[in-house]
Amino acid sequence: MWLPMQRVKIVATGLYLPPRIQTAKELSPLLKRSEKWIISRTGVAERRIAEEPMDVMAAKAARDALGDGPAPDCILNASATPLQLIPDSAPFIERALGLSGIPAWSIHSTCLSFLVALNTAAALITAKVFKRILIVSSENGTPFRDFDDPESAALFGDGAAAAIIEPTPDDEQSAYIDWEMNTWPEGAELTEFRGAGTKHPPNHPSKTTPKDNLFQMKGAKVYRMARDKIKENLDILYGRNNVTPDDFDWLIMHQASGRAVQMAGRYGYPPEKTVNIAANVGNTIAASIPMVLATAEKRGLLKRGDLLLLGGTGAGLSVAFSIIRW
Amino acid sequence: MWLPMQRVKIVATGLYLPPRIQTAKELSPLLKRSEKWIISRTGVAERRIAEEPMDVMAAKAARDALGDGPAPDCILNASATPLQLIPDSAPFIERALGLSGIPAWSIHSTCLSFLVALNTAAALITAKVFKRILIVSSENGTPFRDFDDPESAALFGDGAAAAIIEPTPDDEQSAYIDWEMNTWPEGAELTEFRGAGTKHPPNHPSKTTPKDNLFQMKGAKVYRMARDKIKENLDILYGRNNVTPDDFDWLIMHQASGRAVQMAGRYGYPPEKTVNIAANVGNTIAASIPMVLATAEKRGLLKRGDLLLLGGTGAGLSVAFSIIRW
Repeated sequence: MWLPMQRVKIVATGLYLPPRIQTAKELSPLLKRSEKWIISRTGVAERRIAEEPMDVMAAKAARDALGDGPAPDCILNASATPLQLIPDSAPFIERALGLSGIPAWSIHSTCLSFLVALNTAAALITAKVFKRILIVSSENGTPFRDFDDPESAALFGDGAAAAIIEPTPDDEQSAYIDWEMNTWPEGAELTEFRGAGTKHPPNHPSKTTPKDNLFQMKGAKVYRMARDKIKENLDILYGRNNVTPDDFDWLIMHQASGRAVQMAGRYGYPPEKTVNIAANVGNTIAASIPMVLATAEKRGLLKRGDLLLLGGTGAGLSVAFSIIRW
Repeated sequence: MWLPMQRVKIVATGLYLPPRIQTAKELSPLLKRSEKWIISRTGVAERRIAEEPMDVMAAKAARDALGDGPAPDCILNASATPLQLIPDSAPFIERALGLSGIPAWSIHSTCLSFLVALNTAAALITAKVFKRILIVSSENGTPFRDFDDPESAALFGDGAAAAIIEPTPDDEQSAYIDWEMNTWPEGAELTEFRGAGTKHPPNHPSKTTPKDNLFQMKGAKVYRMARDKIKENLDILYGRNNVTPDDFDWLIMHQASGRAVQMAGRYGYPPEKTVNIAANVGNTIAASIPMVLATAEKRGLLKRGDLLLLGGTGAGLSVAFSIIRW
């Protein structure tokens, strides 16, 4: 049987929230919508606004995860809002951590970047390439909000989260059990930042409009497509592992919006099995999933041995869920 | 011993060179340098210029690699010049291939993206997550050349290359033997495209100059740093695997420039063990290493069982080399 259960453990998580809070009330005049409209439509009452660059936020979350432990032997930047195009953000994060010589690169799958990096890290540890991998997701998407599109602009927030991945010690049961990811390019135009690449290059006003350099999202269409594709994905994953929602202790879900988080109920996960941080941090893109994980750990919710389902959707449109034994 | 020899095989390679050739003679008036100066300083006599987007080039190289075989179960885009910021380029490549539902994401380590993706693919196959992974590197960097910086502008060329990775059949000896990667952030500013991110956002003329949205390279400094760091990296890799340059049949080297390729001699690899395509395609960023590999295969140079060293340097500054049994 081709089932990739791997003896891999998330040994620590880390979190960094920039101190500046932007409330729905503050955002209201910018979006030309009432405070009440913003909160009821998006489920996001407030979000953090970064006053430092993404590599500095990343290093703060990574330090929280690394604690007094040794340096990692690999650094994976799993983010969608880079510092610059070249080099990728990983070397800058390595430098912000005061490190040098450690292999570092970037993984980009928008909101699913952390989950893809976790899957990558698990495989790299199983294949004995590395023994202590730092994954860090740091997002500074708020400068790219399109205030003419209030429904998406009200979603985004800044912040960073991290995790350290190691082989599971012999006498423990932590494991990376399985994952399922599907990419549906027919949904590629539903969530976009069309600029900053070769299609709409920054220096070409004839090819590139200011809107191309802001987030664009067709919220209702994303919601409908995600709803169906999540079901397909989970049916495959549950079937292959012979599990049902009742077997899971926690659903660690990408906080795309307040409404997206409420979808958990539709899939059989009651509120007491989920952690909802969307109201206070909004959609932090790739930092969202590890931020939920780090928040759950800081609140003392996760017990070793718990069965966790992590996942959600990302631009692409992609859907991914992973099963881990905490 | 912690040595990650993996029973993984590159079963096929693919190549796509856009038909339009730009010679040193054509480039001469743009760079205000003579044809002779361009060729002697950079070693690049001509390069290809893409007239199609990077996802279309990627799909052509991928089709060449896939041949009549089945669809891959995972698509890794390993490139530095994306189509747009969000979604990452992988879903667009999947669509250009006429595929849907297959997990697809992007890996970015500039010129080393393919090697990082190969290392990732090997681990994902060893960990039994996937069985047939497509890696494709497609680069369209020529629109980002800074003609005021003739030494770097003369280097870049467009193109795409691909490889298919599978488990090694029981009766064969192909293997992914080991790799060593080091990232040295003290060299982060030596090769840059500072724009297209959060530091110099496209829509902010006060923070972003037109130069920020073009390639910038401090060629002589990169050369000196690379020369020393390559030696350090190879000493570690040779020592761990108890090999010397004499044990290798081929060096598949990133074609950063004509001069960089000539560095092979310094490390003990005579011209008959290397494949030099820099003169005809220039520096194709992440597509460079797989393009050398695909060219060597198309020329009938590689025999199954040959020992290959693949690698070079990338922005970061990073150095990586992998040992594979072909």
